[in-house]
Amino acid sequence: MPQREFRMSTLQPVLDRLDAEIDNAVDRLFTLLRIPSISTDPAYAGDCARAAEWLTADLRAIGFEARVCPTAGHPMVLAHHAGPQGAPHVLFYGHYDVQPVDPLALWENPPFEPKLVEGEAGKRMLGRGSSDDKGQLMTFVEAARAFKHVTGGLPLSVTILFEGEEESGSPSLKPFLEAHAGELKADLALVCDTNMWDHSTPAISTGLRGLVGEEVTIHAASRDLHSGYYGGAAANPIHVLTRILADLHDDSGAVTLDGFYDGVPETPDEIRAMWDGLGFSEVEFLGAVGLSVPSGEKDRTTLEQVWARPTAEVNGITGGYTGEGFKTVIPAKASAKVSFRLVGDQDPALIRKAFRRFVTDRLPADCRAEFHEHGGSPAIHLDYTLPELKKATAALKDEWGKDTALIAMGGSIPVVGDFQKLLGMDSLLIGFAHADDRIHSPNEKYELASFHKGMKSWARIMAALAA
Amino acid sequence: MPQREFRMSTLQPVLDRLDAEIDNAVDRLFTLLRIPSISTDPAYAGDCARAAEWLTADLRAIGFEARVCPTAGHPMVLAHHAGPQGAPHVLFYGHYDVQPVDPLALWENPPFEPKLVEGEAGKRMLGRGSSDDKGQLMTFVEAARAFKHVTGGLPLSVTILFEGEEESGSPSLKPFLEAHAGELKADLALVCDTNMWDHSTPAISTGLRGLVGEEVTIHAASRDLHSGYYGGAAANPIHVLTRILADLHDDSGAVTLDGFYDGVPETPDEIRAMWDGLGFSEVEFLGAVGLSVPSGEKDRTTLEQVWARPTAEVNGITGGYTGEGFKTVIPAKASAKVSFRLVGDQDPALIRKAFRRFVTDRLPADCRAEFHEHGGSPAIHLDYTLPELKKATAALKDEWGKDTALIAMGGSIPVVGDFQKLLGMDSLLIGFAHADDRIHSPNEKYELASFHKGMKSWARIMAALAA
Repeated sequence: MPQREFRMSTLQPVLDRLDAEIDNAVDRLFTLLRIPSISTDPAYAGDCARAAEWLTADLRAIGFEARVCPTAGHPMVLAHHAGPQGAPHVLFYGHYDVQPVDPLALWENPPFEPKLVEGEAGKRMLGRGSSDDKGQLMTFVEAARAFKHVTGGLPLSVTILFEGEEESGSPSLKPFLEAHAGELKADLALVCDTNMWDHSTPAISTGLRGLVGEEVTIHAASRDLHSGYYGGAAANPIHVLTRILADLHDDSGAVTLDGFYDGVPETPDEIRAMWDGLGFSEVEFLGAVGLSVPSGEKDRTTLEQVWARPTAEVNGITGGYTGEGFKTVIPAKASAKVSFRLVGDQDPALIRKAFRRFVTDRLPADCRAEFHEHGGSPAIHLDYTLPELKKATAALKDEWGKDTALIAMGGSIPVVGDFQKLLGMDSLLIGFAHADDRIHSPNEKYELASFHKGMKSWARIMAALAA
Repeated sequence: MPQREFRMSTLQPVLDRLDAEIDNAVDRLFTLLRIPSISTDPAYAGDCARAAEWLTADLRAIGFEARVCPTAGHPMVLAHHAGPQGAPHVLFYGHYDVQPVDPLALWENPPFEPKLVEGEAGKRMLGRGSSDDKGQLMTFVEAARAFKHVTGGLPLSVTILFEGEEESGSPSLKPFLEAHAGELKADLALVCDTNMWDHSTPAISTGLRGLVGEEVTIHAASRDLHSGYYGGAAANPIHVLTRILADLHDDSGAVTLDGFYDGVPETPDEIRAMWDGLGFSEVEFLGAVGLSVPSGEKDRTTLEQVWARPTAEVNGITGGYTGEGFKTVIPAKASAKVSFRLVGDQDPALIRKAFRRFVTDRLPADCRAEFHEHGGSPAIHLDYTLPELKKATAALKDEWGKDTALIAMGGSIPVVGDFQKLLGMDSLLIGFAHADDRIHSPNEKYELASFHKGMKSWARIMAALAA
């Protein structure tokens, strides 16, 4: 098996190079983390562009043909590097945009001033985007850099796509994929935006929940009213909104939208058995965030609730006076941001429609509802028999010394659905983040071990896919 | 009746002086309106002090012994002017603090840059506090100034108390009244913080709803969570809060707190008859703010709902991500500001207790509630046979040429209860504001006619009480 020997002899120096380069790799990541590329807030549009430019320059320095591609929103980074004749072609995807940082007061270290500190599991890197997704995407970039340095080339043909709108519903992604389908199509997509099973067990996510994001605003009176004059007679849109949102779940924790559970599969017994073998601890999972009891559907395990069951969550609500002190106002409007996590064949468009009907059916006299769409994507399930899945599983085991867990993910990565639908590509979801990384929360962190062994994992996976 | 003749001969020059001085009176009020004395926001504490100092200086200029009295919060203004030997002694009360101005974007004219403009009913003054309560309190100050200018004295002994915390629950008022009881005790209190019946009909408010203000925060997880990882398993405090708030009213619009209706009287038939005679138009009242249907208790008229029935209103709610775009977060907490309007003998302390029990009884596992008190006061009902009520009723008719309506008020003026309880004083609630003055809302205004004829009304009332 000459190919295998070739890979092994090439790989070790690459791994050694990654060990030797770790401090420089951290420096490079920190430079990227200092750019506050918050995609949901238009005030940071310039920073998003700056992050895209920085990545493009870095990929060029490695030897990629890289460019910034404008979109209607934040730009894409698109880069190519040819591999040996006949080598497989992979498309690596990551996103350089990050979540907002409020409440800022809760950050112990400023979100865009990254820092390396001692943590419970060794050193960790602090900063918004350190885990989601800048730290993760740089694991692949660093692996490519090391290959290039050691061997003068890459073992695979590699296309890289970095998006800047993942945290705001990816409005430009689909048109971009359609417009650049020929340039983006590869044999397989690699996505690094997911978690390990635990701090020592690598994981590949073979299932991802879908997502529907909706914003609803209830309007009542034509202006804010004094509750002394009008209280008791005037419709209060906060009351209307709270009654509607309270109705979204029944007493068993099930979602009450019409047809919500259409297309929701029961988890197959063999998958259940695999999950049971993971040694998941509900007590630890919930205890880590100060909770003790799963709050969702009463007849489901916690792992099912977060991996295999659809949900409805109110992610934000606002109405009336919310500042210091008190104001006896009946506001003219109140609004909420609501998201639905989808599984199986639930149809995002139908769920959105059912939610809107659910709201409008419950509106009392003098009230109207205004809706605003915040993205939607169906759930994804990978084929367990994919050969590349087996190769990657083995490569991860080589790096971490433990069997790779095939798990589901509660979150959504809409691009995976689009890769399948628009480009006919499967995606391998391999990531090194942890559930306690506090992504989307204050004090986001990424373990140095995730970053370091993550790079080496990608080097091994590239070699394995090339073999 | 020499006294009556004396009053009449004194009064006309005072009224003439008020006509002659109207432009200067508007200038003085505008100077006060330019001070952004928002009491609920600590950032404006200096402005509250500035408003108190300006008023003190103005009262001194008239001839009052006036001083700024510090409190634990914003200062009081306390002033005295002796009247003729044996004249009645009145305590005039107003408040110089104003409501917050958000949402600022909805103001057509900046809130603290007062302006005189043409309105539907003649000229009007625009600005935060123009109606509530700076414009109203200055009607009395201007009447006193004119009396002093024309006669060299006042017809009554007058004490003036201006508070700076009325819009934030009056935390310092009760201790201040207790500490200065001897200095504040008078025969009667006069309060100018209420409405006329309509633009041509003066009114005295003989009933005032009480108020209980509460803030509740529901805490769940120890930090904000990603709804992809935790959604379906982690308690969402917005869900908990909306379910609790939705439960506050039943389907008939009644409030569901235990014992909420204890001490709520039925409106007597003669009062109902008087109200029926006022020609109140539900269509106009609600139509003015874009509504058409009374939303409260189903078996009550609109006037009953706002004057004679207790309410529960959510005045503000916030939780999770409420900025631009979308954030799939399960927040660690969510909170609401809730107020109850009270009537009859409803006990503010019992209502607060019932609300807190209502919330804690409904808390699911892993959630806790934190409460913050924002003031409380019982409802007030004036004795219809009070002699000063008859004198004031007649004086108002002299100015406006129409019978004075004896009405109830949906709002709360806690000081009136404290005057009764702590100082044994009745209060005459006489004001010249209008329901469409947009107090507590953007674009607050005060009719120039309210201001001008309001001053003259106080001159007539002072003379009538002296006679």
